[in-house]
Amino acid sequence: MTGWVEKLDAVARSSGSLVCVGLDPDPRRMAVSDVAEFNRAIVDATKDLVCAYKPQLAFYEALGMDGLRALEKTISHIKDVAPDILLIGDCKRGDIGSTAAAYAQAMFDVWDFDTVTLHPYLGRESIEPFTERADRGAIIVCRTSNPGAAELQDLKLTGDGVEGKLFEHTARLASEWNSRGNVGIVVGATYPGEMAELREQHPDMPFLIPGVGAQGGDVEAATRAGVNAEGRGVIISSSRGIIYASEEAGTFASAARQAVESLRDQINEARK
Amino acid sequence: MTGWVEKLDAVARSSGSLVCVGLDPDPRRMAVSDVAEFNRAIVDATKDLVCAYKPQLAFYEALGMDGLRALEKTISHIKDVAPDILLIGDCKRGDIGSTAAAYAQAMFDVWDFDTVTLHPYLGRESIEPFTERADRGAIIVCRTSNPGAAELQDLKLTGDGVEGKLFEHTARLASEWNSRGNVGIVVGATYPGEMAELREQHPDMPFLIPGVGAQGGDVEAATRAGVNAEGRGVIISSSRGIIYASEEAGTFASAARQAVESLRDQINEARK
Repeated sequence: MTGWVEKLDAVARSSGSLVCVGLDPDPRRMAVSDVAEFNRAIVDATKDLVCAYKPQLAFYEALGMDGLRALEKTISHIKDVAPDILLIGDCKRGDIGSTAAAYAQAMFDVWDFDTVTLHPYLGRESIEPFTERADRGAIIVCRTSNPGAAELQDLKLTGDGVEGKLFEHTARLASEWNSRGNVGIVVGATYPGEMAELREQHPDMPFLIPGVGAQGGDVEAATRAGVNAEGRGVIISSSRGIIYASEEAGTFASAARQAVESLRDQINEARK
Repeated sequence: MTGWVEKLDAVARSSGSLVCVGLDPDPRRMAVSDVAEFNRAIVDATKDLVCAYKPQLAFYEALGMDGLRALEKTISHIKDVAPDILLIGDCKRGDIGSTAAAYAQAMFDVWDFDTVTLHPYLGRESIEPFTERADRGAIIVCRTSNPGAAELQDLKLTGDGVEGKLFEHTARLASEWNSRGNVGIVVGATYPGEMAELREQHPDMPFLIPGVGAQGGDVEAATRAGVNAEGRGVIISSSRGIIYASEEAGTFASAARQAVESLRDQINEARK
């Protein structure tokens, strides 16, 4: 059974791209009003240029049942036209064991995501129902790129084996939880120095790197800091910078393609 | 505009109950197969005995669109027959600002919850879209009752004004984020000593206390440790211990009523 990390590696090789497109539909900015149609156009225009798609569940839930039906159609379309591309459910769930098992059922059996983002705050048993499936897995929120991230994530720890900042310990825990090789971590693009240290400490875990584009992270610096020894192992995600590159009906899909190409090239330049 | 904390206080006074029933439908245990019908029977049998209902979203999401439609019907039924009872969305979301705003839209505008549970890991801006609504608010996951909780929550901090454990600092942050009086914290029932300290440090914040019943927390100890100076300010939540008190079609509703009465009385005895 192929796991999501192997799937990522295969598609990154075959496409020559480490770009992930975040599918975050916002009716105020979409050039067409139908979410599924909008996503379909984005996917069709970019599917030879990316290694992953990452729907952020909040944007579908915000639209009620219609939004969730659009998510269903979007996933089904991706499975149809681009089954090799990694499908990440950006849901940032995190709950006690029995509830986590229900969330795993939702994310894997209902939605059919390959892997999902999770909060670390409730510990190993909140992660286990996701990682015990060999063909699926989890990406643990470790260091985010938002301004308020420091409030908890930069807290300094004291004690045997836990020195350093909270996010560094979260990465260590993720690594401990990674006994099956299907755990990654979220590391925001805005702190390349910290990313380089995390990569040194965790040479093999995949990094999901949001925060380039609209959030202002430096693509080249993040890529150089994040890649593993093979120059891969990172999923560099941009949402608004790609899907709203144009907000015009006639051009949004081609503008998205252009934005992905440009991001892919920037990343590949930095990997050299 | 009445906030959720005032709504809680009003219903706790009028019902004389601090019990919250967790509506966590599990098809393997439900005495009737239709989720909305099951919940409706539980609500009808308990609505004069509780201060809150708390659907855990994972259990609905796990059932796909049917589950979400059942949640819709359940909420609509509660609003019809028991509009004064607090409705808590146990979703434990936590994301960057623009995404958090979409989740707030989902939880308040789509689902119409009075308040929701949130992860603290991304800091203030992940909470703000929920608390900026005067009639809604948030309950921050602080100290959970699961065995793995200690992995992160008990980490010892060092630095000016942050000494102590991570969960204590989370409670301090929740208190800072509480400028509008609509923030509470989740404190598991299994650690009454820690709960008493948190109550001393935060005399006014409401505590959502899961972990009694199936999770093994001591009701009397948790109540005595958690109540505020007025003997209220706690929401004591039980799910499986109530809704699966009987798994027989003929008796599950009356057994749920009996379990709620018994829990209410235990709590009220401890408040004396």
